[in-house]
Amino acid sequence: MGIQDHYLDEQVLHITWSDGKRSKYHYLWLRDNCSSAFHAITEERTFDLLSVSDDIRPTAVSIDGDKLHIDWSEGDHRSSYSFDWLRKYAYSVDFAQDRSGRVESWDKRFVDVIPQGEHEAIMHSDAALLTWMEDLARYGLALVRNMPATNEAVVETAERIGYLRRTNFGLTFDVRSVPKPSNQAYTADALPLHTDLPNHETPPGYQFLHCLNNESSGGESIFVDGFRVLEDIRVNAPEAFELLANQQIPFRFHDDDYDIREHRPVISLNYLGEVTELKYNAHLADIFDLPEDVMHEYYLAYRLLMRQLRDPRYMIQLRLGGGDMVVFDNRRVLHGRRQFDPSTGLRHLRGTYVDRTEFRSRLRVLRRTQGQGN
Amino acid sequence: MGIQDHYLDEQVLHITWSDGKRSKYHYLWLRDNCSSAFHAITEERTFDLLSVSDDIRPTAVSIDGDKLHIDWSEGDHRSSYSFDWLRKYAYSVDFAQDRSGRVESWDKRFVDVIPQGEHEAIMHSDAALLTWMEDLARYGLALVRNMPATNEAVVETAERIGYLRRTNFGLTFDVRSVPKPSNQAYTADALPLHTDLPNHETPPGYQFLHCLNNESSGGESIFVDGFRVLEDIRVNAPEAFELLANQQIPFRFHDDDYDIREHRPVISLNYLGEVTELKYNAHLADIFDLPEDVMHEYYLAYRLLMRQLRDPRYMIQLRLGGGDMVVFDNRRVLHGRRQFDPSTGLRHLRGTYVDRTEFRSRLRVLRRTQGQGN
Repeated sequence: MGIQDHYLDEQVLHITWSDGKRSKYHYLWLRDNCSSAFHAITEERTFDLLSVSDDIRPTAVSIDGDKLHIDWSEGDHRSSYSFDWLRKYAYSVDFAQDRSGRVESWDKRFVDVIPQGEHEAIMHSDAALLTWMEDLARYGLALVRNMPATNEAVVETAERIGYLRRTNFGLTFDVRSVPKPSNQAYTADALPLHTDLPNHETPPGYQFLHCLNNESSGGESIFVDGFRVLEDIRVNAPEAFELLANQQIPFRFHDDDYDIREHRPVISLNYLGEVTELKYNAHLADIFDLPEDVMHEYYLAYRLLMRQLRDPRYMIQLRLGGGDMVVFDNRRVLHGRRQFDPSTGLRHLRGTYVDRTEFRSRLRVLRRTQGQGN
Repeated sequence: MGIQDHYLDEQVLHITWSDGKRSKYHYLWLRDNCSSAFHAITEERTFDLLSVSDDIRPTAVSIDGDKLHIDWSEGDHRSSYSFDWLRKYAYSVDFAQDRSGRVESWDKRFVDVIPQGEHEAIMHSDAALLTWMEDLARYGLALVRNMPATNEAVVETAERIGYLRRTNFGLTFDVRSVPKPSNQAYTADALPLHTDLPNHETPPGYQFLHCLNNESSGGESIFVDGFRVLEDIRVNAPEAFELLANQQIPFRFHDDDYDIREHRPVISLNYLGEVTELKYNAHLADIFDLPEDVMHEYYLAYRLLMRQLRDPRYMIQLRLGGGDMVVFDNRRVLHGRRQFDPSTGLRHLRGTYVDRTEFRSRLRVLRRTQGQGN
């Protein structure tokens, strides 16, 4: 792709490309991102931006093959940029990129098409791991079949992606009924839909639940894609959506050793305005301390969300068997379970977390090593 | 404290207290926070808020000693609230609490009054640990003296507070010059002021740097309280402050095993509008992809921040010796070092992190067990 035209104004190099697209490049941006600004080995930025003034500008711009050169008014320096690089990093409207993550939300029909991987393949093939992780990134939930019946299996599989996220419950946790539970997960009660640990500054990202035994009557697992529910609320009740995104409520868990509290919005948005997180856990919701003028409306919005989350059209129900593992994005997909009867047999899930930072990093590295680019 | 007067409207119980303060309590809030709404053992919330309607309201309110009772229009239920509880959780303006964390920002004069603790006391006395942690929470930086000269000491001390925050560099890291560095910390170069790992979704909270040896010439440590710098920018250049808080820039670190990227604002605010985090790391700043209409102004704001961070009136310089440990809030206090000459002697710091969630939890538990209340 060639350059059709270019000109300079006070702050900006304007380029019109051969395909008609236009882009602007601010002088400070160009100087800051000159290829000599990065360390040869670590590729970290080493240029000191303050070594030039606010008013730096080109004294000459020249084009030579597929490169654009700039001589600068300061520092006796020439920078060179390839056309490819200039188009790749263009930030003008004509180059607006789809930076969202190819997320696809789902409802109850997802139960028939849940992505699954084979434990053996995921452990030994990077290609199989990548395929399974791409599905998990897109849908927020995927299964692994034929897990070994060992306590270590959940950790070994999770570590194919990255190091574990520790919490106040440890690096791993066992979900089964115990005599003196510190929270409701460790009873035989039904567990309403929730996301884990919204009382932490950063709730855990991906949750791994390996079913070692499920021989009790009852105890089916239930899941809802919070992103789908929020898409619908955003359209049908935009004011409720805004309240849930803009107001923060307190969450808390405490026992003898911990007292973990955080104010967090139920809905988090990224810089593109997309929903990135849902934090919903009625058990850990502390006493709301919202301003009095929004309290009533907030309760109505919150209750709307609660009702929508229980709508059966969003919900999938699975009966995990020994050897199954379900993995889901804990800040997107809500999970719960039906009541079970511990006298009828053993129910034992073993869980761990890997956070989003490590998941996404691994996905990028696998795409690179498996030749699927950036 | 008694109740002077009370009345009901459509949604709210209004109370005027004997001291003249007024508070409102919304019916949904009162019903949701009835003492029977919490589990007897775990203290988690078990009441199903959807078991009542949007229109629930009192049929009778009565006062009996220091308790207020409400009979509800639904569910044949009576709730009781002590006056103390009602005042403690009041969310009306008259009860607006100072919920900020008694933070005190500092400038270069802090060098003469840096809080310090003795390793032996911190390890064996909860009271000493609490005092030292309160100082660290308030000022964002504190020292520990007379650390043992072992590789484990930094971990053992950090674990007095909580479990470690793992990163792509592991649970601990060693700062010394190495032949093939993956980042500039592991050279003998000067390290400009920065916060660690803004490329992570949540940058690490408290950083522990144990000085095992510092016999090289040079290599002094430097620190700046980012909160103080931002207070000044907020007053003197509010538009720059807003840009740094509202726009997100990309950060990135990559090597053979990781490719960790995140868009984050340089300044994060909490729900009270207070600065909670500064993320500043020129080395990890990736190529800015801001909208073209803010790019130039953003660069000016960012450069203003850079200049302020270098202003000597904010900076403290310390020469850590063997046995010293400096601990600081990595999302508040920027750190760096002067260049050193590795041929003149060994310089070896060993580091780890404990995140804010665990730090704050430990502080609450220590306050409780040391009898300083909530």
